[in-house]
Amino acid sequence: MTDLSAVKAALKAQEIETPSWGYGNSGTRFKVFAQEGVPRDPFEKLEDAAQVHAATGVAPRVSLHIPWDTVDDYAALAAFAADRGLVLGAVNSNTFQDDDYRLGSVAHPDPKVRRKAVDHLLRCVDIMDATGSRDLKLWFADGTNYPGQDDISGRQDRLAEALDEVYARLGEDQRMVLEYKLFEPAFYTTDVPDWGTSYAHCLRLGPKAKVVVDTGHHAPGTNIEFIVAFLLREDKLGAFDFNSRFYADDDLMAGAADPFQLFRILHEVVRNGGFAPERGVAFMLDQCHNIEAKIPAVIRSVMNVQEATAKALLVDSAALAAAQQAGDVLGANAVLMDAYNTDVRPLLREVREEQGLNPDPVAGYAASGWQQRIVAERVGGAQAGWGA
Amino acid sequence: MTDLSAVKAALKAQEIETPSWGYGNSGTRFKVFAQEGVPRDPFEKLEDAAQVHAATGVAPRVSLHIPWDTVDDYAALAAFAADRGLVLGAVNSNTFQDDDYRLGSVAHPDPKVRRKAVDHLLRCVDIMDATGSRDLKLWFADGTNYPGQDDISGRQDRLAEALDEVYARLGEDQRMVLEYKLFEPAFYTTDVPDWGTSYAHCLRLGPKAKVVVDTGHHAPGTNIEFIVAFLLREDKLGAFDFNSRFYADDDLMAGAADPFQLFRILHEVVRNGGFAPERGVAFMLDQCHNIEAKIPAVIRSVMNVQEATAKALLVDSAALAAAQQAGDVLGANAVLMDAYNTDVRPLLREVREEQGLNPDPVAGYAASGWQQRIVAERVGGAQAGWGA
Amino acid sequence: MTDLSAVKAALKAQEIETPSWGYGNSGTRFKVFAQEGVPRDPFEKLEDAAQVHAATGVAPRVSLHIPWDTVDDYAALAAFAADRGLVLGAVNSNTFQDDDYRLGSVAHPDPKVRRKAVDHLLRCVDIMDATGSRDLKLWFADGTNYPGQDDISGRQDRLAEALDEVYARLGEDQRMVLEYKLFEPAFYTTDVPDWGTSYAHCLRLGPKAKVVVDTGHHAPGTNIEFIVAFLLREDKLGAFDFNSRFYADDDLMAGAADPFQLFRILHEVVRNGGFAPERGVAFMLDQCHNIEAKIPAVIRSVMNVQEATAKALLVDSAALAAAQQAGDVLGANAVLMDAYNTDVRPLLREVREEQGLNPDPVAGYAASGWQQRIVAERVGGAQAGWGA
Amino acid sequence: MTDLSAVKAALKAQEIETPSWGYGNSGTRFKVFAQEGVPRDPFEKLEDAAQVHAATGVAPRVSLHIPWDTVDDYAALAAFAADRGLVLGAVNSNTFQDDDYRLGSVAHPDPKVRRKAVDHLLRCVDIMDATGSRDLKLWFADGTNYPGQDDISGRQDRLAEALDEVYARLGEDQRMVLEYKLFEPAFYTTDVPDWGTSYAHCLRLGPKAKVVVDTGHHAPGTNIEFIVAFLLREDKLGAFDFNSRFYADDDLMAGAADPFQLFRILHEVVRNGGFAPERGVAFMLDQCHNIEAKIPAVIRSVMNVQEATAKALLVDSAALAAAQQAGDVLGANAVLMDAYNTDVRPLLREVREEQGLNPDPVAGYAASGWQQRIVAERVGGAQAGWGA
Repeated sequence: MTDLSAVKAALKAQEIETPSWGYGNSGTRFKVFAQEGVPRDPFEKLEDAAQVHAATGVAPRVSLHIPWDTVDDYAALAAFAADRGLVLGAVNSNTFQDDDYRLGSVAHPDPKVRRKAVDHLLRCVDIMDATGSRDLKLWFADGTNYPGQDDISGRQDRLAEALDEVYARLGEDQRMVLEYKLFEPAFYTTDVPDWGTSYAHCLRLGPKAKVVVDTGHHAPGTNIEFIVAFLLREDKLGAFDFNSRFYADDDLMAGAADPFQLFRILHEVVRNGGFAPERGVAFMLDQCHNIEAKIPAVIRSVMNVQEATAKALLVDSAALAAAQQAGDVLGANAVLMDAYNTDVRPLLREVREEQGLNPDPVAGYAASGWQQRIVAERVGGAQAGWGA
Repeated sequence: MTDLSAVKAALKAQEIETPSWGYGNSGTRFKVFAQEGVPRDPFEKLEDAAQVHAATGVAPRVSLHIPWDTVDDYAALAAFAADRGLVLGAVNSNTFQDDDYRLGSVAHPDPKVRRKAVDHLLRCVDIMDATGSRDLKLWFADGTNYPGQDDISGRQDRLAEALDEVYARLGEDQRMVLEYKLFEPAFYTTDVPDWGTSYAHCLRLGPKAKVVVDTGHHAPGTNIEFIVAFLLREDKLGAFDFNSRFYADDDLMAGAADPFQLFRILHEVVRNGGFAPERGVAFMLDQCHNIEAKIPAVIRSVMNVQEATAKALLVDSAALAAAQQAGDVLGANAVLMDAYNTDVRPLLREVREEQGLNPDPVAGYAASGWQQRIVAERVGGAQAGWGA
Repeated sequence: MTDLSAVKAALKAQEIETPSWGYGNSGTRFKVFAQEGVPRDPFEKLEDAAQVHAATGVAPRVSLHIPWDTVDDYAALAAFAADRGLVLGAVNSNTFQDDDYRLGSVAHPDPKVRRKAVDHLLRCVDIMDATGSRDLKLWFADGTNYPGQDDISGRQDRLAEALDEVYARLGEDQRMVLEYKLFEPAFYTTDVPDWGTSYAHCLRLGPKAKVVVDTGHHAPGTNIEFIVAFLLREDKLGAFDFNSRFYADDDLMAGAADPFQLFRILHEVVRNGGFAPERGVAFMLDQCHNIEAKIPAVIRSVMNVQEATAKALLVDSAALAAAQQAGDVLGANAVLMDAYNTDVRPLLREVREEQGLNPDPVAGYAASGWQQRIVAERVGGAQAGWGA
Repeated sequence: MTDLSAVKAALKAQEIETPSWGYGNSGTRFKVFAQEGVPRDPFEKLEDAAQVHAATGVAPRVSLHIPWDTVDDYAALAAFAADRGLVLGAVNSNTFQDDDYRLGSVAHPDPKVRRKAVDHLLRCVDIMDATGSRDLKLWFADGTNYPGQDDISGRQDRLAEALDEVYARLGEDQRMVLEYKLFEPAFYTTDVPDWGTSYAHCLRLGPKAKVVVDTGHHAPGTNIEFIVAFLLREDKLGAFDFNSRFYADDDLMAGAADPFQLFRILHEVVRNGGFAPERGVAFMLDQCHNIEAKIPAVIRSVMNVQEATAKALLVDSAALAAAQQAGDVLGANAVLMDAYNTDVRPLLREVREEQGLNPDPVAGYAASGWQQRIVAERVGGAQAGWGA
């Protein structure tokens, strides 16, 4: 029943934003393993991101992380991106890697530290003005490690005050998207631990504030697609951070740990109109893959999101609705599983060929010679990374 | 620094509501073990609840569950309670034990089933009119077991419609309190799975709708006291369902599995003014203890809540705030732990003696002869229970 | 690289054992929903199981549950099965639905209760003698609900004593397979909570004792395929109980919640020789699906296990080993995912056609008219079920 | 009923081993916060450990971590310790912070890397010879991040081979204690993920191999005290790594997150004879507290273990056994809770006074002036830490 040409058109129109930090070294608290050819500055990160876009055709957007991607001239960075067919995406604020942030940033008990953190956020909006980025993406490491360490309500007051100030600074077409996370690095309380907390703050702030769903930031057993459906129904879903996890915030390649879950999430996106441009949902990757090759791992994540999307688009929505309405449990489940069990790789190969791309992005990248070139050329200097 | 007489006064003023179903047989899906002397009707349940109040002095309120506690004359039931020093508390609606509810109640795909469920809720408000109960407590078993089985957003629409109709029926001094639960009996989606969902509905409904926190209804690792603090800050906390769990919704005696957590929760209640009568927070037990003696287990739960409350009241709030403000992690934690590590049982014995009670409620109940009497007298008839 | 005819042969040789209790009513503690046409006795259960085998061709074995499947003449039951092309499989002992078992069965503090429980297990071996069953499948609901309730080590002593006695009773070709489960119905300690405990007892008992892996019985985040690989390496894997879960022991249809996990498990079975008949691994379903139609749900579970098996058989093991040995993280993962992403349904349709079956078992069953017949004929009598 | 003088004697005889790395900087993957006065070498770590022992009287043993604590002359290090009333304890091997270990150490697919790792372990035994340490403590970061990345069984083979070689090298009075951990840094499989895996290897190795229970290394919901009881019953418990966690391996101060759990664990130790010197159970701390002051946090952990031990020693074991034997669920639980609810701090103050110590170790340390001295003197050089 599904219109294949419409599915193909949707797949070609998809945009998946890749993270600048996904191209640098990363690791766990135990070890950051260095890789050869890793970028030494934001420009080299963009060069790598351009390879992912060249291979897949759907990754023109790149998120920045400040201060990791600090440069003197952000307009020049945006031009550098544009020259490579890229667009600078969300600006991610980092208020967790300074000794001053030991007890938090915007919710720190000391007003001087809060001021410093808010100033950093405001500076990020300045950068957005220069780069043309729409979204300020906020994730706070703020929280406490021990019962009694700080006052839960008091921290909410401070958080709210900071958000209010930053929200007021947003330009007409700019947004603030607020991420939540169950735990880590804070181990007792986290100031924005769940979607409900992010949602409540966004509701107070206004229409330019939306919730970010990072697929690795939930308690075990949380039904993420329920949250996605609920937020879309309330028009409060701002963005995804795709990655995958078996245990905690493992930050593995998107779709690697539970491809069925990724499909179910994208099914709710399709079902609830989340791909419509006017909904403004950003589809970002946020991963911290640390033992496998950098660029190929990002390509694989993009492909995994594409495959899940293709399956979601193939769901026979009329048959599904009919079975649901009839209370046919097995029939409705079978309609959904029929799409999931379809091998969509041939379809995606066709889509890529129609776009003039190598039907196999991994092979395309391997054949490009880029990996050998960066290993040979990027010698000396300090590799980008986000370890402490 | 703490004013002991104020602590004692607060402990004497505390009211813990016990559940009528806590006096009947209950169990797991594997077995409901029958106990001797278990009540055969709502009147006998009230007699048992009166024993708990007699032993503890703080349990005058009893929650009902409809249709389990269906009687011909609710005013008579309320009078029967009053004669025993009791007050009828929340009316809990049960829309999960009818074959019609196989696929849900208020969110069922079939409008006829939804109508039946909403009518039951409206009938519960009628009962509240008769009993003088303030709160309609809503917990829905609604959800799905399989991906695709029903439409997540569509179910929210139906749920919202039902809540709207019932909310409109509430009297001036009546409230609707909406419980959330991660899972069980639905195993894939639950229509109100977390506090955020309940909060969003309550916000839409208005000031007479509040969230219920059942301490057994969260994903592993959820910080419940954060939710309590957040909801109190938003003035959306309506009630507690206290019980305890090691794994899922085990429904064990309150305070039995993690007494430190119960203390932390009550600390947030104290810190955020949740004991003030005008906040309207109801402190209910909701447990399904199935292998130990019924009445003594309820007494033990009441005592556990009392002990946690006493410790929370003993926290040196000035010292705590000073250490928190100074960023003294160990010092602030030590202030909280000092209260927790205090043995408050002597204080509670004093409180009870000052109230003319046996200082040991368990011994007091044992000495009352009630248990022997009900075992001897309650012979024949159908024991109350909530098994399928 | 894979030999398709070998894959087909393996799929035709596969045997999946279905549970007699999967054909009766079942539910949660909240409600057992009754279905029309449900069997009223063990013979009718076998009739239904025969339909599953007729539709799929791979389900000739049926597990019994005693006392649920108590009959006067077990040889007659076996003959009834044989007449329908079925074989009686494992005998499951049930020592949890008697009031005497409130505090446990073989680990109960009272020796009289332990005696009763062990006598039941010995009686199950008698039944195995009559039915020709190879396996006594043991799952104990034993445990405690509260810290201090009973002595953990003492319970292990009693458990060990009971297992020793039953093990000594086994015939030469009989086995004891011991299931573990994290929790439920016991909520604080469970006497066999994890594979390590089962393994340690089986090791002490001897070669006729093996571990059962029920896919729903683990803590969140447990890597089940690791356990499968480890037990196969130690030659201590006796059987699977397949079902699926999102949260606890949800007992949904196998493969419904996480088909990728089921594939990974079956990949380890293939990799470690677990399909070889001499390894003696039994592939059983154990599910408690309660809102969907009984027989079709069992058929769907069988198909899901078949599909995961087919994918596991399609893994290019030489390419996988080469990539693993080379430390090629992405390459090795890609080999595995290539098999998983394959749509094996056409292959299975071929297999079925070659076996003279309807290529679509669900359609085949629907066309058989069996469902209409049992709804019409099975009127009156007590439906089978396992609720309390 | 409890003999208080015996309790006091036991508390005085207790030895809690502190980790050298607990005195250095540590953190999460997001940030290692530097503290003033932190040691620059193993000798300064021992000086700090001596302060903990001076304050508490029960912490004479210090664990080393190699290569973090590499020195030229281990006998000199041991003598330095002895001069300060300390004894060098377990030698912890570190095979996770070298780029060669990206895909594992003793289970790495490349035999050259395995050789390197095993050589490191053998070198650790050499160090034990020099320091007089009894225990080689093994924790392996080995595992995989993606399905298919490596062969689960093959990795077990390699692990077993490495353990065999190291076990053969142990001296007559030396032991190998093998730690398990659910996940982190590996995110898909971990080669020793649970106690069962460690137990199976230790069983094969022989009596000098024992299991280490790290209280932060389990899946959510795992009943740790059950494992402790089981391992003591099998005489396979070698050591504890005490720390606490709310979510994953948070490595907070022991007893901070769930003091009731720590009490239950120590109750099983007492109950099963684990404090008897001949059982050889080592009571170690292993924490990575990163926002609070180093030495005071170790002191607090030691005190928390002492308090839990004191409560465990106060359990009326005769009353408990009687209630358990009688099947008195509430009575047995009440006996245990009576000990837990006791405020043992006055008792511990008495114990310390009888030992000539400051009754308040935190105050004692603060009064010693040590903190001011190290902040003033330890300037320049590289602070010890274990970040990547």
